[in-house]
Amino acid sequence: MATPTRIGLAGLAVMGQNLALNIAEKGFPISVYNRSTSKVDETVERAKKEGNLPLYGFHDPESFVLSIQKPRVIIILVKAGAPVDQTIKTLSAYMEKGDCIIDGGNEWYENTERREKEMAEKGLLYLGMGVSGGEEGARNGPSLMPGGSFEAYKNIEDILLKVAAQVDSGPCVTYIGEGGSGNFVKMVHNGIEYGDMQLIAEAYDVLKSVGKLSNDELQQVFSDWNKGELLSFLIEITADIFGIKDDKGDGYLVDKVLDKTGMKGTGKWTVQQAAELSVAAPTIASSLDSRFLSGLKDERVQAAKVFKASGVSDILVDQSVDKNQLIDDVRKALYASKICSYAQGMNLIRAKSVEKGWDLKLGELARIWKGGCIIRAIFLDRIKGAYDRNPDLANLLVDEEFAKEMVERQSAWRRVVCLAINSGISTPGMSSSLAYFDSYRRERLPANLVQAQRDYFGAHTYERIDVPGSYHTEWFKIARQSKN
Amino acid sequence: MATPTRIGLAGLAVMGQNLALNIAEKGFPISVYNRSTSKVDETVERAKKEGNLPLYGFHDPESFVLSIQKPRVIIILVKAGAPVDQTIKTLSAYMEKGDCIIDGGNEWYENTERREKEMAEKGLLYLGMGVSGGEEGARNGPSLMPGGSFEAYKNIEDILLKVAAQVDSGPCVTYIGEGGSGNFVKMVHNGIEYGDMQLIAEAYDVLKSVGKLSNDELQQVFSDWNKGELLSFLIEITADIFGIKDDKGDGYLVDKVLDKTGMKGTGKWTVQQAAELSVAAPTIASSLDSRFLSGLKDERVQAAKVFKASGVSDILVDQSVDKNQLIDDVRKALYASKICSYAQGMNLIRAKSVEKGWDLKLGELARIWKGGCIIRAIFLDRIKGAYDRNPDLANLLVDEEFAKEMVERQSAWRRVVCLAINSGISTPGMSSSLAYFDSYRRERLPANLVQAQRDYFGAHTYERIDVPGSYHTEWFKIARQSKN
Repeated sequence: MATPTRIGLAGLAVMGQNLALNIAEKGFPISVYNRSTSKVDETVERAKKEGNLPLYGFHDPESFVLSIQKPRVIIILVKAGAPVDQTIKTLSAYMEKGDCIIDGGNEWYENTERREKEMAEKGLLYLGMGVSGGEEGARNGPSLMPGGSFEAYKNIEDILLKVAAQVDSGPCVTYIGEGGSGNFVKMVHNGIEYGDMQLIAEAYDVLKSVGKLSNDELQQVFSDWNKGELLSFLIEITADIFGIKDDKGDGYLVDKVLDKTGMKGTGKWTVQQAAELSVAAPTIASSLDSRFLSGLKDERVQAAKVFKASGVSDILVDQSVDKNQLIDDVRKALYASKICSYAQGMNLIRAKSVEKGWDLKLGELARIWKGGCIIRAIFLDRIKGAYDRNPDLANLLVDEEFAKEMVERQSAWRRVVCLAINSGISTPGMSSSLAYFDSYRRERLPANLVQAQRDYFGAHTYERIDVPGSYHTEWFKIARQSKN
Repeated sequence: MATPTRIGLAGLAVMGQNLALNIAEKGFPISVYNRSTSKVDETVERAKKEGNLPLYGFHDPESFVLSIQKPRVIIILVKAGAPVDQTIKTLSAYMEKGDCIIDGGNEWYENTERREKEMAEKGLLYLGMGVSGGEEGARNGPSLMPGGSFEAYKNIEDILLKVAAQVDSGPCVTYIGEGGSGNFVKMVHNGIEYGDMQLIAEAYDVLKSVGKLSNDELQQVFSDWNKGELLSFLIEITADIFGIKDDKGDGYLVDKVLDKTGMKGTGKWTVQQAAELSVAAPTIASSLDSRFLSGLKDERVQAAKVFKASGVSDILVDQSVDKNQLIDDVRKALYASKICSYAQGMNLIRAKSVEKGWDLKLGELARIWKGGCIIRAIFLDRIKGAYDRNPDLANLLVDEEFAKEMVERQSAWRRVVCLAINSGISTPGMSSSLAYFDSYRRERLPANLVQAQRDYFGAHTYERIDVPGSYHTEWFKIARQSKN
């Protein structure tokens, strides 16, 4: 290595390796480092194989850091939490004023804000950058959500623009905003991803359990759906999944996969933040709950026995359905629910943006999610369009185009949810989305009764519909008087 | 005042005043203190009026503390958070080794644990005690949930046993457990209370909006319900509410109350803790979301306009229903949903108990909620019975009695939710409870697809239904090969 490299990357697990190779391939010489050195050699080997890419491996942190041109930029991709702090400590010992560390992991946004402050005390810059797209995205073009120091962003903007996924509207990266905004946006992105996956799983369940579709038919349905309004990475891979045979036995692999879903924390944070910020996000919350309940496999097996013994079987009644009608209805139900889920996610981001003064641009987020990331979908153009029309849109549901789509789909949506309910199939994502829609579009909710109860037992007061002000009524005394 | 008092109470807002009077009435001489002295005089005045109760007011903290017999016990009832720390600081300056402070507010359990440690360093004891029952309960017998120092609990057990609500099975108080367990249990109690109130509001909405019941009819229905399985404080006060006329105009007061629900934080914490502990609590979460959505009154008015203009009116279709059948169905739906909600709350408490090693007794909690508190209900006997039969019951739903009740009610429940959906009325609590039931009793959920997706894009691996172990498949490669 004759001259310093342009950038460094530490942490060579799946994501790190692939992102480093991506950067090298785009023509930016890169130094790489990992605590266990075998990963370094592995990455160097891959760089050779994949076209003699300008990637240089280092076994010790000092020579790694010193190999990078100043001001140095180092992306770290290690486990969120303590490993990030440890890595920062190791590397920053050799870094100088103006150098920058970029955390590309799924980090809790407050950790990023703490670190940005700590780094600033040493004259170092810091970014928390959401990276979405999994292994494949990291290698060939992820969606990047960098937040924190704008100066640091500017130092590597040229790299990020080339490394990110490229779509019609440009590279899938933008400077998100200050502080932990990049991590926060990535967190909500993941929450939305949970919602999308849950809704697809419910569509699958209804089509399979009620509509009796075979895996071949399911593959066809999802392939067809991927040509229309639902065109997206997740629908595409779902179609793929239904086509794959089990290599360990007969039949299809999907049927052999255990119905237990893992998770890594960002969905949980999204739900907790929604509660913190007073934003209803029932679709995302129900996808998290579904993962929790999926984990209780043994309990579910027991419960199924208990209820089957009482005559409540898995599928309550075999309802005869028109397959084509059902497929069409489920597609509409999925799409309408998806709109609700994105409305929740976007409003959560906005609520945080207001709280923190981040001034995030919701339409621009939809744009950078258009490629590279797990939730990439043609649908995101619609969201961008909605915020282009009105950046202050209170809720996606009331955008003129989305409202029209909801109106067109709501009857099918209601049919699907009721069909599922009457079949004993749970559709927590679709039904909570529908409840969200019906609550949001309702001028008067029964919350008057709840507030009356609160005033009755806790003197919490209430407002009136006809005159302003705050009122308290001695409900108990009045009720007792009229009883006597 | 010739001799020292038995106990002190600081913080004389509604709850504090009433609890102090309750203690005095039970024959325990009590010293009271408040930072703004007018509240002290007001309380002393009330004590005189309400029967020359042995209650003594103090205008300065020192003489207040010194007026109490050693080891001193002081209950504080001030706003959670900083005011509690401030009050502790003020009072502890005059307290001695072995003295005890009891925080009776709705405090975050970790704050209690921090304070218990800080107090222990000074040789002082500490309890975090949930107090439920509102104003009336505090005065005449609340449900008390003391957690923390067992020694401190023993010092005032005689007082608490007399002050608490009295029911068949004894006083509504028990030593909950160590640390912040008293606050945690009270927090979940409040989350359950949110769920109960939301479910009642939905029952009201369906009966009113679909069944077209008048307030008089609603009063009758809730009065009838209060004679059976739903017998409870909240059903009772709901019946009362429907009977109260508006004193500012024509008609009934409940119709004039604005449909915006306030909240104070414990519901939010419950939802966040459920996510933290991987416990699905959709009924409670949907009640929180409903409060959030109720707060968006202006947005809802706008949204209603948008959708009405497209032909989607508030009530989609006027369905002709048999009123008596509907009332019966709604009662069953409410009861079945309530079982789900309590199952979630109880499992949340157990998960925390396991995490913290608190060894909480779920049946005993049901017992002390039987009187005094907002969720008091005959139904709690059933829960106690279930845990008496099996303290390790995985979920209330699979208790033999509850399972039987669910089986008997599930058809009516499905009818109500579908009726609401087809009418455009949201029932987020009832429908999420139903989805919870249908997920929990399902041996095989569509989570296999979600896990296959996770393995596809993130190499997260999956388990199989037929052979143990963890597997990864190159889904993308296989799918690409079969396409070529």
